[in-house]
Amino acid sequence: MRHKGFVDLEFVKLDIAREKRKGLPEIIYAPGKTIPQLNCIISEFKKHTTTIFISRLKRRQFEILRKSHRKLKYYKDAELAFLGKRINETRGNCLVITAGTSDIPVAEEAAVFLEILGNNVERVYDIGVAGVHRIEPFKEKIKNAKVVIVVAGMEAALLSIISGICPSPIIGVPTSVGYGSSFKGLSALLGMLNSCAPGSVCVNIDNGLGAGYFAHLINK
Amino acid sequence: MRHKGFVDLEFVKLDIAREKRKGLPEIIYAPGKTIPQLNCIISEFKKHTTTIFISRLKRRQFEILRKSHRKLKYYKDAELAFLGKRINETRGNCLVITAGTSDIPVAEEAAVFLEILGNNVERVYDIGVAGVHRIEPFKEKIKNAKVVIVVAGMEAALLSIISGICPSPIIGVPTSVGYGSSFKGLSALLGMLNSCAPGSVCVNIDNGLGAGYFAHLINK
Amino acid sequence: MRHKGFVDLEFVKLDIAREKRKGLPEIIYAPGKTIPQLNCIISEFKKHTTTIFISRLKRRQFEILRKSHRKLKYYKDAELAFLGKRINETRGNCLVITAGTSDIPVAEEAAVFLEILGNNVERVYDIGVAGVHRIEPFKEKIKNAKVVIVVAGMEAALLSIISGICPSPIIGVPTSVGYGSSFKGLSALLGMLNSCAPGSVCVNIDNGLGAGYFAHLINK
Amino acid sequence: MRHKGFVDLEFVKLDIAREKRKGLPEIIYAPGKTIPQLNCIISEFKKHTTTIFISRLKRRQFEILRKSHRKLKYYKDAELAFLGKRINETRGNCLVITAGTSDIPVAEEAAVFLEILGNNVERVYDIGVAGVHRIEPFKEKIKNAKVVIVVAGMEAALLSIISGICPSPIIGVPTSVGYGSSFKGLSALLGMLNSCAPGSVCVNIDNGLGAGYFAHLINK
Amino acid sequence: MRHKGFVDLEFVKLDIAREKRKGLPEIIYAPGKTIPQLNCIISEFKKHTTTIFISRLKRRQFEILRKSHRKLKYYKDAELAFLGKRINETRGNCLVITAGTSDIPVAEEAAVFLEILGNNVERVYDIGVAGVHRIEPFKEKIKNAKVVIVVAGMEAALLSIISGICPSPIIGVPTSVGYGSSFKGLSALLGMLNSCAPGSVCVNIDNGLGAGYFAHLINK
Amino acid sequence: MRHKGFVDLEFVKLDIAREKRKGLPEIIYAPGKTIPQLNCIISEFKKHTTTIFISRLKRRQFEILRKSHRKLKYYKDAELAFLGKRINETRGNCLVITAGTSDIPVAEEAAVFLEILGNNVERVYDIGVAGVHRIEPFKEKIKNAKVVIVVAGMEAALLSIISGICPSPIIGVPTSVGYGSSFKGLSALLGMLNSCAPGSVCVNIDNGLGAGYFAHLINK
Amino acid sequence: MRHKGFVDLEFVKLDIAREKRKGLPEIIYAPGKTIPQLNCIISEFKKHTTTIFISRLKRRQFEILRKSHRKLKYYKDAELAFLGKRINETRGNCLVITAGTSDIPVAEEAAVFLEILGNNVERVYDIGVAGVHRIEPFKEKIKNAKVVIVVAGMEAALLSIISGICPSPIIGVPTSVGYGSSFKGLSALLGMLNSCAPGSVCVNIDNGLGAGYFAHLINK
Amino acid sequence: MRHKGFVDLEFVKLDIAREKRKGLPEIIYAPGKTIPQLNCIISEFKKHTTTIFISRLKRRQFEILRKSHRKLKYYKDAELAFLGKRINETRGNCLVITAGTSDIPVAEEAAVFLEILGNNVERVYDIGVAGVHRIEPFKEKIKNAKVVIVVAGMEAALLSIISGICPSPIIGVPTSVGYGSSFKGLSALLGMLNSCAPGSVCVNIDNGLGAGYFAHLINK
Repeated sequence: MRHKGFVDLEFVKLDIAREKRKGLPEIIYAPGKTIPQLNCIISEFKKHTTTIFISRLKRRQFEILRKSHRKLKYYKDAELAFLGKRINETRGNCLVITAGTSDIPVAEEAAVFLEILGNNVERVYDIGVAGVHRIEPFKEKIKNAKVVIVVAGMEAALLSIISGICPSPIIGVPTSVGYGSSFKGLSALLGMLNSCAPGSVCVNIDNGLGAGYFAHLINK
Repeated sequence: MRHKGFVDLEFVKLDIAREKRKGLPEIIYAPGKTIPQLNCIISEFKKHTTTIFISRLKRRQFEILRKSHRKLKYYKDAELAFLGKRINETRGNCLVITAGTSDIPVAEEAAVFLEILGNNVERVYDIGVAGVHRIEPFKEKIKNAKVVIVVAGMEAALLSIISGICPSPIIGVPTSVGYGSSFKGLSALLGMLNSCAPGSVCVNIDNGLGAGYFAHLINK
Repeated sequence: MRHKGFVDLEFVKLDIAREKRKGLPEIIYAPGKTIPQLNCIISEFKKHTTTIFISRLKRRQFEILRKSHRKLKYYKDAELAFLGKRINETRGNCLVITAGTSDIPVAEEAAVFLEILGNNVERVYDIGVAGVHRIEPFKEKIKNAKVVIVVAGMEAALLSIISGICPSPIIGVPTSVGYGSSFKGLSALLGMLNSCAPGSVCVNIDNGLGAGYFAHLINK
Repeated sequence: MRHKGFVDLEFVKLDIAREKRKGLPEIIYAPGKTIPQLNCIISEFKKHTTTIFISRLKRRQFEILRKSHRKLKYYKDAELAFLGKRINETRGNCLVITAGTSDIPVAEEAAVFLEILGNNVERVYDIGVAGVHRIEPFKEKIKNAKVVIVVAGMEAALLSIISGICPSPIIGVPTSVGYGSSFKGLSALLGMLNSCAPGSVCVNIDNGLGAGYFAHLINK
Repeated sequence: MRHKGFVDLEFVKLDIAREKRKGLPEIIYAPGKTIPQLNCIISEFKKHTTTIFISRLKRRQFEILRKSHRKLKYYKDAELAFLGKRINETRGNCLVITAGTSDIPVAEEAAVFLEILGNNVERVYDIGVAGVHRIEPFKEKIKNAKVVIVVAGMEAALLSIISGICPSPIIGVPTSVGYGSSFKGLSALLGMLNSCAPGSVCVNIDNGLGAGYFAHLINK
Repeated sequence: MRHKGFVDLEFVKLDIAREKRKGLPEIIYAPGKTIPQLNCIISEFKKHTTTIFISRLKRRQFEILRKSHRKLKYYKDAELAFLGKRINETRGNCLVITAGTSDIPVAEEAAVFLEILGNNVERVYDIGVAGVHRIEPFKEKIKNAKVVIVVAGMEAALLSIISGICPSPIIGVPTSVGYGSSFKGLSALLGMLNSCAPGSVCVNIDNGLGAGYFAHLINK
Repeated sequence: MRHKGFVDLEFVKLDIAREKRKGLPEIIYAPGKTIPQLNCIISEFKKHTTTIFISRLKRRQFEILRKSHRKLKYYKDAELAFLGKRINETRGNCLVITAGTSDIPVAEEAAVFLEILGNNVERVYDIGVAGVHRIEPFKEKIKNAKVVIVVAGMEAALLSIISGICPSPIIGVPTSVGYGSSFKGLSALLGMLNSCAPGSVCVNIDNGLGAGYFAHLINK
Repeated sequence: MRHKGFVDLEFVKLDIAREKRKGLPEIIYAPGKTIPQLNCIISEFKKHTTTIFISRLKRRQFEILRKSHRKLKYYKDAELAFLGKRINETRGNCLVITAGTSDIPVAEEAAVFLEILGNNVERVYDIGVAGVHRIEPFKEKIKNAKVVIVVAGMEAALLSIISGICPSPIIGVPTSVGYGSSFKGLSALLGMLNSCAPGSVCVNIDNGLGAGYFAHLINK
């Protein structure tokens, strides 16, 4: 059933007006949806938009979906699927940084999303504060970026370091990397929220996509 | 052993007076009970009531139980089993709303329960506030419902929106849908408890049945 | 003692290179500092910068400090003091929104800070979701703002609503407004972190200044 | 400034359409508002409604406000002020129960609110489960009430007891009464949310008004 | 290596003086120990005591251990293994009560332990407050017990009810039964700690053995 | 109004049957009650019992109440008031131990209560584990006590030490003594609940009275 | 009463053997002790030791105590009192660092304590990571210190930075400096516990003394 | 790519200057890294250092890695892999103590690490406070150790006991051993942070390596 601004498939109301309102189409969040539901949503969206994202999609889900949607592409580190045409600009300069190697999947979710939307992305991975000199060769990049995403778990101190030297807006993504009293990302989240260095904000734990989305809005 | 108001099967004391006291028979909660225990409880209840509900029953448990209780029906989305006669009224007007697709199983637990007891149920699924215009075509339904159930995870903002426009009692069901700092439904629970809009209450996380039960009491 | 990039007054190391690095000078955070300490910091800063901010300054502290620093201005709702010259541009368009009246002091901290730095600020206060129609007349403003700050306590649902309709970056400031299970802003913080609508980020509870600072970076 | 459905006093947007939408006017929440703000809000509301409630108003605030609004009445146990005409029906039967004496102020907020709106209220105070026989003489009242409000702190076990014997909808109000591991009402809140007896719901800690409001909707 | 009061097997120091000091031998806690470790501990203990308990032993662990220790008995509901001679007294009167059927395993840990040590145990299972009349036929037992153990999950209100009518010491065992905001037994634990009825104490979540141990000390 | 087993003073239902049921009369909990309420409760109780306890009574409240109730006695360390005749037995042997000096007020609540009821009480204060040798001279007392109360804040390790050497039942009272991550007694509470030494139980934080009550039941 | 290793003043058991066992005498913790108690403890300790410390002593308490103990010295920033002879060595090199000015009182507690015991202390205050270049001129000090204490609130990132460059043992002291989601030092505590840089440990929130004590043990 | 002080393999920046700065090379943390990543890191590190540690490596991961790195040694209790030459000193005296048998894996991580680096390690396992006399034969060792590591779960009281008698620095490692309200190590962590005995510090839950590292720094 077609309503003003959305299509009603009963189990889902596709927000086809999202693109007009927000500049970006609705992103399909895979967890909690069955394969038939995802299939049906993609099929319907194809009629209304040229850009379909499916986030947190497992490889084995992707492989089933690809049978019906041959052009669906999959970015396995990011667990992100995309159907449509990549935008061929390389706008601005988005820098995606991680503190450690284990933070990379979350960072990739942000980076891949940004690239598809035509943002120029640079990645600097594993420069956490245990060896803060690793930041040195990237200082120019950090200062010149138009927006920076810092992905870090554990105590997430990297955000404050970057905030101390970077004049641009910085988006922190706490990750669930760690053990014991990291309490599945709580320590990183609190660390980022309480950063003593101004100029940074925070998204939900492991929410790489949200950070990418926000960076895109700034970089646009 | 038969006592006043209950039957004593040692491991369980069937509250056969519940129906008289509360208007509804005891609902069997499946988790933590073995198949033989469930079997035995159903058999005994059959002697005392015409309406048996088993909640949070897994399909594979249902399939074993059905061998002994051929008339047991199963509502798979709701994970609810029922033995008895559906009430053929369509009393009042209960509206069950979800914010997202992943909230549907919890909503179905409420909806199916209400329908079996003779309440007229309307479902409006996936109208979360990310696309608040999706509420528009259902506004009349919302205003005219005798009681509304709002099922939402994450920040559960939908409850406040519905509370702002609906003059009837609204029951919030926070769900464990989400990740990271949703802390398995805590964010949704706190969001619903702190709703700035008057006229709503809250049940336990994922407690669709409790919401359906309460809505039935109001709608009766 | 003068070091490269800072002045060492023993109890404080004034980061006089902050302005060069970050584009904005260090902001003095008053809590935990004595009047003589504040006095001394201001005097020293005067030699190095033309823009001095003191945040979370109580009126009675301000009145003492003004005796030594006659040009210090005080914005009482924001509890913010300023010494220097307001920037006379009116760049871009920053929209500061609150859900309720009690959220205004936190919002003012953001708004005043932004204005001093030459950003054009519009305020829309008390349009919380209990009466969501109050958003209607401001929809154009919301759509046209270059950056939006949403200040809300309790369940903080307003952030998601604004995120649903606004294409620009949105900064959420959870406030400690509320009682009981709001747990001094925790419910609002979790609500904002778990917002189902994309395009928003979050700062610390009651951190109006941090939101203003970040908005300034985007608007610049 | 007058908009569709509200009056804009800058620091507050009076939701004068609330009564039409919700059946009840906006209730003014005093904490966080100054006396001049409250004064101004009351004066404006007088033009639009005949029923003004101010909740959580301290006696000394009331005494100042009464100078400008001579007809303002004050219910000191409930910390509730009212201006308007009490409705002279005595609809239905609302039962307000407390577990202890210290829970009475929260209960009174519910009870007074209900009475002003024309609901018949019966109070049964201090029948907590330490002496569960105190429930006995009130059993008929409990069974015959159209809606019951149970106000309890500490472990809040009274809610489950009442739920076990009462066929009507029951609204639990956890209170911050207690010490140590009651954690300012958290134990009571969790107790009520996890009640094993069906037919009850829960509002925020100490939220007597919210419970009264919801009971009014059911009793109407 | 033999020391005063214990035997040193490197990975474990068997407290063979425990029985003399405490009246009861050390109880072997199985989780975190390997089968060879358990085997070795049992073999050594056999030389020093006639009463060996192993708690939280899985059936499959038991079956391997029995090959070396033929007289080891296993109580599957309680996940308790015992090697030695049951004491043939039937001292006093210990009453073990549960709120629900799912609480029985925890209760059995207490009950079996008490019986082996020569205490007379009566079990009354599934008399939770949703149907408080189920307590009635057992009131005499409750009043005459020398010590009562109450095992309950969710809101654990049964403890307060029993405390209200029983003049003997009552030991509460919160269980992890429940879901959502029961937070794995936290709601039951807080409920029991904050019981408004005097005469009860509390042990760790699911700690049936601890409760049985303490009841034994009182009943002795 | 007189009901079966209680007197109804509206704001309070005096449980005059408590003594018969539980062996001890209801104890009046002062916090949250006004002076007139306390006055009225004492006056009424005088007609029904010979033993009146008022707990957590501030000295200045006591001094007002004594004007009407001349025989009211006050134990200032314990903040406990008592009206009646002390029982002149010296039954059994209750040992009350504290870890530190700051824990004494909580301990005194237990000790004074026990003494009034005719229990022989010995106090051993300030033998916390920082100097565990201080336990030595009291070891005989610890071994011979019929019941032991251990009152401790911070990490509350004393409970486990005493449990390791004492064959009698031990009641732990966590206190709110400490700072920082003691979180107002939470560290002590968790420490006591997780004691690795068997034979101990726990009451609410700072609940000296509850511990005294329970010890009395055991010692009786 | 004199026992082996301690003096029994009833309300306190002075651990006069502490010095022999631990190398340092017992430190008197003032909170929760009355002036007469403190007076009495100091008088008794004078007979047994030449070094008396009283921590967290308020100035007004100090002024009363000094009347009886003329040689008592007071360090107001540290809220530490001392009676005895300062040790005139300047052993090793202890570096005490703070992230901000508000952390100084906690740092002083550590520094003063260390100095009195004959440790050479250097202070570097206010070099938090918002301006990480402020660390530069102190790098040699950091590398050459024998032990470092890092005192920081909010996100406490400074600990990780120092740990990254310093080869000596580093003791973190989280402080309760901050607001909102710093939750009175919890964010700093979790940040320090989860530091990604090896070589650091942590003490309780605001526990400057504990850090000083531990540094003294290492430096000795 | 080679930078000053590190090698850039994109997904990881090997901190080859760590050894020079900190005295010890970077330790590879296995969780969250794939086998190819680990392989590549080891291969690169081989060019720069003679001492490679891989922590929290599962046996099955080790077995694959060994195929490429034949000299890799594995310590299965510690889940630690090592490639290089053990240092043949036996410096100082490090004592590693556990409260129970289940704490041994965490203790071994510390002990093995210390031994490889040339520290003399003594192990005393399972002397928890339930049988505190088990400490007796090891008292001399405890007093003479240069540094002590105490590994304990549940209430972790052993730390305070050891702190009371040992004049050397003591490092506490809380473990996740326990159940129910141990909340995966939280009770042990809080217990250790709040220890009333001076001279101890704390690392993250289950962080044996961190404790070993720190002990090495002291013992060096």
